[in-house]
Amino acid sequence: MAYTVLDIIQHPENYLPNIQVDNVILGYHDKELKVLLQQTIATNKWSITGGYVGRAESTDEAANRIALSRTGLEKLFLQQFRSFGSVSRSEDPEKNAANMSKLTGIEVKEDLWIFDRFVSLAYYTLTDFSTVKIKKWPLGADSKWWPVNELPPLLFDHKEIISEAIKALRMHIAFYPIGYNLLSAKFTLPEIHALYETILGRTLDERNFQRKLLSSGIVTKLAETRRIGPHRAPFLYEFDRAKYNEGLQRGIVLAF
Amino acid sequence: MAYTVLDIIQHPENYLPNIQVDNVILGYHDKELKVLLQQTIATNKWSITGGYVGRAESTDEAANRIALSRTGLEKLFLQQFRSFGSVSRSEDPEKNAANMSKLTGIEVKEDLWIFDRFVSLAYYTLTDFSTVKIKKWPLGADSKWWPVNELPPLLFDHKEIISEAIKALRMHIAFYPIGYNLLSAKFTLPEIHALYETILGRTLDERNFQRKLLSSGIVTKLAETRRIGPHRAPFLYEFDRAKYNEGLQRGIVLAF
Repeated sequence: MAYTVLDIIQHPENYLPNIQVDNVILGYHDKELKVLLQQTIATNKWSITGGYVGRAESTDEAANRIALSRTGLEKLFLQQFRSFGSVSRSEDPEKNAANMSKLTGIEVKEDLWIFDRFVSLAYYTLTDFSTVKIKKWPLGADSKWWPVNELPPLLFDHKEIISEAIKALRMHIAFYPIGYNLLSAKFTLPEIHALYETILGRTLDERNFQRKLLSSGIVTKLAETRRIGPHRAPFLYEFDRAKYNEGLQRGIVLAF
Repeated sequence: MAYTVLDIIQHPENYLPNIQVDNVILGYHDKELKVLLQQTIATNKWSITGGYVGRAESTDEAANRIALSRTGLEKLFLQQFRSFGSVSRSEDPEKNAANMSKLTGIEVKEDLWIFDRFVSLAYYTLTDFSTVKIKKWPLGADSKWWPVNELPPLLFDHKEIISEAIKALRMHIAFYPIGYNLLSAKFTLPEIHALYETILGRTLDERNFQRKLLSSGIVTKLAETRRIGPHRAPFLYEFDRAKYNEGLQRGIVLAF
């Protein structure tokens, strides 16, 4: 399967109709939470990165394939958190078919299901945005990271989808450990504290946070320190991989 | 719209193709957690209660309509928690079309999309099973409540869907209050303790549970007691509706 725009126009029967996968790719780095968005050439509006589901692949496989095609990252942990299926989720078929014909040089009919109402299966993932090499979407004018609090005008209900993804993420991090791909292998307590504060979008009492984190057993204090100023050299910590993986499997309650 | 089996066979174009809504209807009563299942006449296998999405309704509206048709309950709080889209999710089209033709007396073609691979949008809800009057599904041999730990052989991946619904429920009750429809208006602390233990599927230290529950502010101690034995008359409690509703809106952390 080619899974290209041309392929879906020419062989729509190879895809599940009226269904789209939408990946909310969230990125954290140094106290900033961002989301990867793409801008269509035709409408100028921004949207979550998404695509269609081939008949030969599961919906989860489609989400992974599409995320890889936009970020180059093989091992993103994509979490399917909700679907969106309001009646108004369809594009202007006539205008869009005309745009698509112009862009591809192939005559695209307006009754093709990609212009019809469709249900979006929404996934989210969280990665370190400084490590991602964005790959441009063939039909997109631009692709870039946007701070989650300063979003541009978005397609359909994509603003709601992003907001629901962040809500799901905030719920999940009270049950599952995070940080392994988002912090250096050795980190200070203020660094992991900032990570949780940024994702939760609120301040967390530092002493209380540290007490709960340490009692969870997922981090281990090292004998090393890191010099960050003439009189400041906080201790370094690392994740206990066994406890961390156990937490991913069985869940831990880490409600701050 | 009639939304009957006959309607979908005769007017498949009025529905979103290759999509199904599946409602995991969970029921609690007196320390028991059950799930409502239906048995098909054709296969004898049991399944979650589900149905198709009309083009004139949103997926959420479809879920509510279908849940109402099975339980008679108008105000079920349905939570869409995941979709299921593996490649193997399709029935034997030839056999099923023949069965459907026999049951309805109408010739049903095997290339109708209801026999094709479809994606399931899964919802769950939690209600008091003692208050539900089960409505039989027209194509079903039987419909009844099954204890979640003693399930019969199930269709497709429905066992996994039920297990994921319970996992989602367990995560949600650490963030959102429950109990308003599941306990009497006035209840004892042992009763709400049993509710949480049953849903979480594990024992909870009673003193710790009570301390966290009371400090959350969602329950209020009344001046009344209830006599439950010659020397036992525990105090009664009720939900603080304002705090409870605020918890539903903004979330509370109630991790036991």
